[in-house]
Amino acid sequence: MMRVYFDNAATTAMDDRVIEAMLPFMKQHYGNPSSVHSHGREVRSAIEKARKKVAELLQASPSEIFFTSGGTEADNTAIVCSIETHGITHAISSPIEHHAVLHTLEECAKKGKVQLHLLDVNESGDIDMQQLEDLLVKHPKALVSLMHANNEIGNINDMQAIGALARQHGAFFHSDTVQTMGHFVHDLKSLPVDSIVAGGHKFHGPKGSGFLYVRKDKKIHALIHGGAQERNMRGGTENVIGIVGIAKALELAYEDMAAHRTHIESIKQYFIDLLKANIPDVSFNGRSAEMGKSLYTVLNVSLPPSEENAGMLLFNLDLHGISASGGSACSSGATVGSHVLRAIHADPLRDSVRFSFSRFNTKAEVDYTVGKLKELYGVEV
Amino acid sequence: MMRVYFDNAATTAMDDRVIEAMLPFMKQHYGNPSSVHSHGREVRSAIEKARKKVAELLQASPSEIFFTSGGTEADNTAIVCSIETHGITHAISSPIEHHAVLHTLEECAKKGKVQLHLLDVNESGDIDMQQLEDLLVKHPKALVSLMHANNEIGNINDMQAIGALARQHGAFFHSDTVQTMGHFVHDLKSLPVDSIVAGGHKFHGPKGSGFLYVRKDKKIHALIHGGAQERNMRGGTENVIGIVGIAKALELAYEDMAAHRTHIESIKQYFIDLLKANIPDVSFNGRSAEMGKSLYTVLNVSLPPSEENAGMLLFNLDLHGISASGGSACSSGATVGSHVLRAIHADPLRDSVRFSFSRFNTKAEVDYTVGKLKELYGVEV
Ligand SMILES: Cc1ncc(COP(=O)(O)O)c(C=O)c1O
Ligand SMILES: Cc1ncc(COP(=O)(O)O)c(C=O)c1O
Repeated sequence: MMRVYFDNAATTAMDDRVIEAMLPFMKQHYGNPSSVHSHGREVRSAIEKARKKVAELLQASPSEIFFTSGGTEADNTAIVCSIETHGITHAISSPIEHHAVLHTLEECAKKGKVQLHLLDVNESGDIDMQQLEDLLVKHPKALVSLMHANNEIGNINDMQAIGALARQHGAFFHSDTVQTMGHFVHDLKSLPVDSIVAGGHKFHGPKGSGFLYVRKDKKIHALIHGGAQERNMRGGTENVIGIVGIAKALELAYEDMAAHRTHIESIKQYFIDLLKANIPDVSFNGRSAEMGKSLYTVLNVSLPPSEENAGMLLFNLDLHGISASGGSACSSGATVGSHVLRAIHADPLRDSVRFSFSRFNTKAEVDYTVGKLKELYGVEV
Repeated sequence: MMRVYFDNAATTAMDDRVIEAMLPFMKQHYGNPSSVHSHGREVRSAIEKARKKVAELLQASPSEIFFTSGGTEADNTAIVCSIETHGITHAISSPIEHHAVLHTLEECAKKGKVQLHLLDVNESGDIDMQQLEDLLVKHPKALVSLMHANNEIGNINDMQAIGALARQHGAFFHSDTVQTMGHFVHDLKSLPVDSIVAGGHKFHGPKGSGFLYVRKDKKIHALIHGGAQERNMRGGTENVIGIVGIAKALELAYEDMAAHRTHIESIKQYFIDLLKANIPDVSFNGRSAEMGKSLYTVLNVSLPPSEENAGMLLFNLDLHGISASGGSACSSGATVGSHVLRAIHADPLRDSVRFSFSRFNTKAEVDYTVGKLKELYGVEV
């Protein structure tokens, strides 16, 4: 049995070169970067080199990059602390944001810190830009939290347009870039955004690593208090291997981004073509099948109603060695279902499956997977 | 030149067996533990095995253990979320707590969530237990946050006595156990504490790993919101290598704790004896030279006033390859000085240095270090 990993939007395999970069900081260089002695200094210097590298790749300043334990902590920090620091009273977001954003905003609303406005989303997963403008007119200086690209349906938001509106109305614009970091170029010189985030494990770096970018003139306070680490923006002894690892992973991602993109796009297009040719009544959720309007790493497939596979599709794929990710629109049994698919009114009778790709995937894996889908859906072979 | 690492209270070298336990989760087992497919399940099972192991060692239930990014995040969670969840309005702590506790409490006070009471501390670093009782009588159901052992002067608090008072008055008792975890046995069946914390890198585990224990009947909410990870107590894809690493490190620590303690105590006693015999007018801060009343891993040495070494002692030691940690009582120049030494009214004219030990240290390193101190202090050799 082939073992196929098509769940790269959930997490990716680590690049060997990232592991190699981390190992010296497990064995030899174990000092605490806050210590002034030689054991500490050699580690401090590795951290600052990592910060400089990340800043350079993103066209930011090293003082704008703060390492965190992951994308979720970075999202929490950006949201909670922009609200607290800048005295923000209204937040504008959308119902298809990741829970790291949505639950954090809901917490802030529950505690009475902000009033939360969620933009309408159409059946393709597009947010209502007119509504965003209307809300900003009514509530200038709001927090706008809208993701760069959606992790389930792949839809890409127009960062320039959102950022322009936010700037015009003096809003703080945070964007959850967890799914695009390492896969798209972020040029923070021209991108009108105030904070973005990353999680290393989404681009072949280590789990437990992440960073937060906050624009110089929009500084925010810390979420986690303690020592003076990360320029007082995050207390706690630094996760040195995580920091070295995420910087290396981002460096490698930028090095070969165009080539990897071409490779992955060809896989995705091949997958779309094969599905259309072989599975009657197949369709695609959101804009995930529209190249250029979606993450090239994500394809969210909607399959026709089928008694054999209802609620069991992922399980059936797993039996054949294929790892993919779920998201039915309903909330049956143990799985709560996808809030994203519900928001775009996906048909609850159809099973949805997200296939997500990395540079390690091959067309042979697509052949195998579509073959198994044909079997599962009783298509004559 | 010998290279001596006497800064184990800042961080420790990783144990090779911990690294070995982590490596498979960097290379082979990269799945996301939240994924239901085989790639995810094998990782989920490793995390739950780690949780069970930690719980077992501490006589707790796995559902009471929550993995975090370190001691600081765990302290922040315990403090901020116990206050929020249990509607606490008064907090009792001490001025010699770690900044992970002190700054977090100060933030809560600044935001008007609690009134903060800091206990008096005498010149030996003992907290005033009578004052604690008086405050609890006045403010029952307070948060009591008092560390198990102090990271600078080593003083050990009487957890049983503090916990008994806290229970009697319906208080929530959080204890920062970062310096004792892995070095002392914590039996949570008999210890009257509601939450404790750990940072893996303090006992030969990885940086970026930690955990929080919260007693079942004192449940608190999450600090970091997102996915349903850690039973909704901490959003964010789990730092799998960190979790596997900290559990392995704790297991190894418990395995050989008595032997390591004997070894380290002999090093510390030897150090004390050699200093007394060789450095005129040497003394010790807090109770760090009192075996049984202090961490066996920490010795905080107070050296006579000396023009050559004033503010330069750590630097001079570093030149000789000796890594130790600072803390003058004053706040001269760039270094802010130690809030702990200030609180116990250490003489600002004397230089203080914290030597802290691990099982990897040797008596030869003590000989070398005391030899260098004799040179630095102009003692005839
Ligand atoms: C869009 C988005 N934001 C945030 C996150 C949270 O990242 P992590 O779980 O690594 O903290 C994810 C990961 O699933 C994501 O896809
Ligand atoms: C007593 C105490 N509490 C908390 C911490 C914070 O630990 P970390 O920096 O690993 O988050 C430390 C580490 O110095 C400590 O000694």
